[in-house]
Amino acid sequence: MAEEKTVSSSYVFKGRAFDVRIDTVINAEGHETTREIVEHVACVAVVPLNADGDIVLVKQYRKAVEKELLEIPAGGIEPGENPDEAVRRELQEEIGCYPGKIDRIGGFYSTPGYCTEYLHLYLASDLKPSQLQAEDTSGIVCLAVKSVQIESMIKSGEICDAKSIAGLLHYLKYEKKVKNQKSKVKSKIKK
Amino acid sequence: MAEEKTVSSSYVFKGRAFDVRIDTVINAEGHETTREIVEHVACVAVVPLNADGDIVLVKQYRKAVEKELLEIPAGGIEPGENPDEAVRRELQEEIGCYPGKIDRIGGFYSTPGYCTEYLHLYLASDLKPSQLQAEDTSGIVCLAVKSVQIESMIKSGEICDAKSIAGLLHYLKYEKKVKNQKSKVKSKIKK
Repeated sequence: MAEEKTVSSSYVFKGRAFDVRIDTVINAEGHETTREIVEHVACVAVVPLNADGDIVLVKQYRKAVEKELLEIPAGGIEPGENPDEAVRRELQEEIGCYPGKIDRIGGFYSTPGYCTEYLHLYLASDLKPSQLQAEDTSGIVCLAVKSVQIESMIKSGEICDAKSIAGLLHYLKYEKKVKNQKSKVKSKIKK
Repeated sequence: MAEEKTVSSSYVFKGRAFDVRIDTVINAEGHETTREIVEHVACVAVVPLNADGDIVLVKQYRKAVEKELLEIPAGGIEPGENPDEAVRRELQEEIGCYPGKIDRIGGFYSTPGYCTEYLHLYLASDLKPSQLQAEDTSGIVCLAVKSVQIESMIKSGEICDAKSIAGLLHYLKYEKKVKNQKSKVKSKIKK
């Protein structure tokens, strides 16, 4: 499949959260058409585990959908930051904790049909209290939730944010087993 | 948690795929601030199962991320359509099949931090050949993939689109077991 060659490109909006540009391209059929593209910085999204192995979610009002949503902590990577640094900053801002251990477990585009945003998915643990102040995080409420509850909250639609569902189900499917296996190995060693 | 009261709202971009507006709001701390919002129609995203129980994915070039991606079929609900009708149309356009059976299995916001888009998640089966022509679907290639392969393609990052990961893992976790249980019941009846 051929990529779409850009004929011209121009910005129609420059914002604080994102920019919008229109690319004129040659599509798969060889015809000229336009692509409206939201330019958004790369982000991190984190599944944070507390000492009990419960997952820390954040509850916040989202103006775009006019609702309070339950999500995993996430945010944009700032200029000069790498994803690891963004994870440590975001967790201090959103859940007031510094993660002693972080692991990149995946990643995905949020809406590749029209937006450039890529999210690096992390697992974080060994959380220690450490608060950083940030704009727009004072309205955030934290909630520690057991894995079994998370499963039913996704099924029921109580958790209804794509990155959170993708991130949490990824953790539950691919990482939790590994963690449990490690715990079993540890307990065997103790015996 | 209080919702954010809108002080004023104005459009800065009106496009073909989405519009952009800026809302001036009173935030959680009682301060005036702005929210940049991408207005996008509601969509459907579908996990289509062929006669072998394999999942039909679509491969297409995504200009926003300058890559060819593997995704589940998805698209906007057109004016006058309900989600069921959009599922039947989209599958005919994207994979050339009419689904004899469709079930809504979930739903989620794609990027609630700045976009209004909500996706209704469906499971579709009993596929019969039926092609509908549509703009921008001629570059799409279909691929039937076994569930076990899907699992490793998500883990490896080969499938790296949030709605596809959320939709496929949702299917694998909550629906596949039900389907398998039903098959077992059927085979018991046959005996």
